[in-house]
Amino acid sequence: MSTHRRTPHHRKEMVTLSPADTPGPGQDTSADENSPREEFSRSAPHFADRITADGRDGWPVEAGRYRLVVSRACPWASRSLISRRLLGLEPALSLAVTDPIQDERSWRFTLDPGERDPVLGIAFLSEAYDARETGYPGGVSVPALVDVPSGALVTNDYHRITLDLATEWTALHREGAPDLYPEAHRDEIDEVAEGVYRDVNNGVYRAGFAEHQRTYEDAYRRLFARLDQLSERLSTRRYLVGDTITEADIRLFTTLVRFDAVYHGHFKCNRNKLSEDPVLWAYARDLFQTPGFGDTVDFDHIKRHYYRVHTDINPRRIVPLGPDPSGWLTPHHREQLGGRPFGDGTPPGPAPEAETIPAAGRAG
Amino acid sequence: MSTHRRTPHHRKEMVTLSPADTPGPGQDTSADENSPREEFSRSAPHFADRITADGRDGWPVEAGRYRLVVSRACPWASRSLISRRLLGLEPALSLAVTDPIQDERSWRFTLDPGERDPVLGIAFLSEAYDARETGYPGGVSVPALVDVPSGALVTNDYHRITLDLATEWTALHREGAPDLYPEAHRDEIDEVAEGVYRDVNNGVYRAGFAEHQRTYEDAYRRLFARLDQLSERLSTRRYLVGDTITEADIRLFTTLVRFDAVYHGHFKCNRNKLSEDPVLWAYARDLFQTPGFGDTVDFDHIKRHYYRVHTDINPRRIVPLGPDPSGWLTPHHREQLGGRPFGDGTPPGPAPEAETIPAAGRAG
Repeated sequence: MSTHRRTPHHRKEMVTLSPADTPGPGQDTSADENSPREEFSRSAPHFADRITADGRDGWPVEAGRYRLVVSRACPWASRSLISRRLLGLEPALSLAVTDPIQDERSWRFTLDPGERDPVLGIAFLSEAYDARETGYPGGVSVPALVDVPSGALVTNDYHRITLDLATEWTALHREGAPDLYPEAHRDEIDEVAEGVYRDVNNGVYRAGFAEHQRTYEDAYRRLFARLDQLSERLSTRRYLVGDTITEADIRLFTTLVRFDAVYHGHFKCNRNKLSEDPVLWAYARDLFQTPGFGDTVDFDHIKRHYYRVHTDINPRRIVPLGPDPSGWLTPHHREQLGGRPFGDGTPPGPAPEAETIPAAGRAG
Repeated sequence: MSTHRRTPHHRKEMVTLSPADTPGPGQDTSADENSPREEFSRSAPHFADRITADGRDGWPVEAGRYRLVVSRACPWASRSLISRRLLGLEPALSLAVTDPIQDERSWRFTLDPGERDPVLGIAFLSEAYDARETGYPGGVSVPALVDVPSGALVTNDYHRITLDLATEWTALHREGAPDLYPEAHRDEIDEVAEGVYRDVNNGVYRAGFAEHQRTYEDAYRRLFARLDQLSERLSTRRYLVGDTITEADIRLFTTLVRFDAVYHGHFKCNRNKLSEDPVLWAYARDLFQTPGFGDTVDFDHIKRHYYRVHTDINPRRIVPLGPDPSGWLTPHHREQLGGRPFGDGTPPGPAPEAETIPAAGRAG
């Protein structure tokens, strides 16, 4: 989830967490020099209902009923973008893409004709939150699954959404959809994903939003120690768990694809660029070039979002011109490691035409 | 020169320049979107007296009479640090090194015992400016040459200082000192240095301090176009002009050595790292490993200065841990291009022990 950050008229969304770094939408919290791990925290999602096959939370899986709202800038939302593509859920679950730049009312549909989402008829994602809970005091985050008939938010639980797309939405999967969360590997996927979340997905934010040198350095060291470990792991195997693409790869990819464009400079994660780690760079390119990954990535949205929204670390809002993203399209040679990207399934077809990334955001 | 930037109680030092980018100490100036070249400008040095062999400005070259005040963080001051080393002027021209972090009174001698320069007996470089001109309204910049007997600033003209060290101080040069500004090549050196100054030395500042996207992009494009041209030039020749080290190399080096540590991220000059350009990276390493270059470089001073002083672009003052500078010591193989680094002369000996760079600032 990308929660809108500190703007003058925004709903309060600072949430202080336990030092355990509980995941969820969140913001910087005040912190003293001695509690670095508390400085940047994410709160648990407030709306954690699940859309399931049996509808036990009141939200049954149903074609055409829900709308997935994302920002293409946001790594947490991008997980669901990728899962939806890999699983071929586009016909069953429609997509709304917000402007990468929030205003004081947070995520908005300014890219759509009339500046309203054409299906939900709303100008701001906050309207779906309001439809669910009047006066909800928390932040507005993506990804969000919205019930189209009522216009109400169902869930913004980004950890759960992709797992449910993989395991609860199976009746609506395309022919040949991969198993992104295979039962036999769930423990290993969860374990890998936990370290990736703490040190990588959220680690870059902890580094970038650190208010104290020591907090930054702690996050930086954990980040690169974890990346080194992942690089070692991926030097002999094509994917993180088993020999197919899983949820674990999706979660690592969404941070790696933003690394050189944003995290290296903006968040000061600059021991090296991703492109300087031969293993991780080839791994990330392999995924990027797999249908369903790179075709969801808009570098223009990514860069404009981070550099223009985070005025507390980039006050002049200049968006860097570099680096050249065309390297993402170069040969990676990871096929040599074997692996069966889609297991017994097949790759998805191309993205729907309406969801094609504009030239300004593409790698080449 | 590094002039102290915008602090609450600092003397006014905003100077608006002609669009011709006249060199000299300066600051950001107010600028509108349509005059990008004026946005970041440097004013001409206010104190442009010259120390010459014939003493025509009242300041004759004389061993032990002057003190060179520098910040090791500052690329403009570093020119004179390198020239002094290459020419073996250490016994004749003593050195004062300021703290890399200015306070509201600008450059200060907080690294010295009692927080005073032991020779000049002053706590702030501004005292030498005051001794020269009471109530001088401009900025305090390094490099500065100070007359020890009177304690008064002689010159802060960083463009002129190194040329005069090379051509006016010859009587005090060491045995085997190189000719850094050979008469036969002066036009070519001046021409190369002009482009390097405009697009590279000052270009990185124009990019980094841009207040408008368009200004930034203009500086970025000129910077990398010039670097590409220099890379091409240096692909077949070891040094920029002739076959020896000259003033032109010194001026390019001081920006290149800061590139990956500071300009790539902090100033958003991120098309690529220096280390990603094989020619320029080998050229810069060759110079770095030449006595008189790398032994003047303190990466700790460099990084702390930029990241902690420029609160208008790095408000949280976090100093990045990366990148690892040890690559500066790897083989460069530029000897294969021939060249005679010191011409008919010889390399300088090691730096005086008192001027050795502390471990925290060294490349390895």
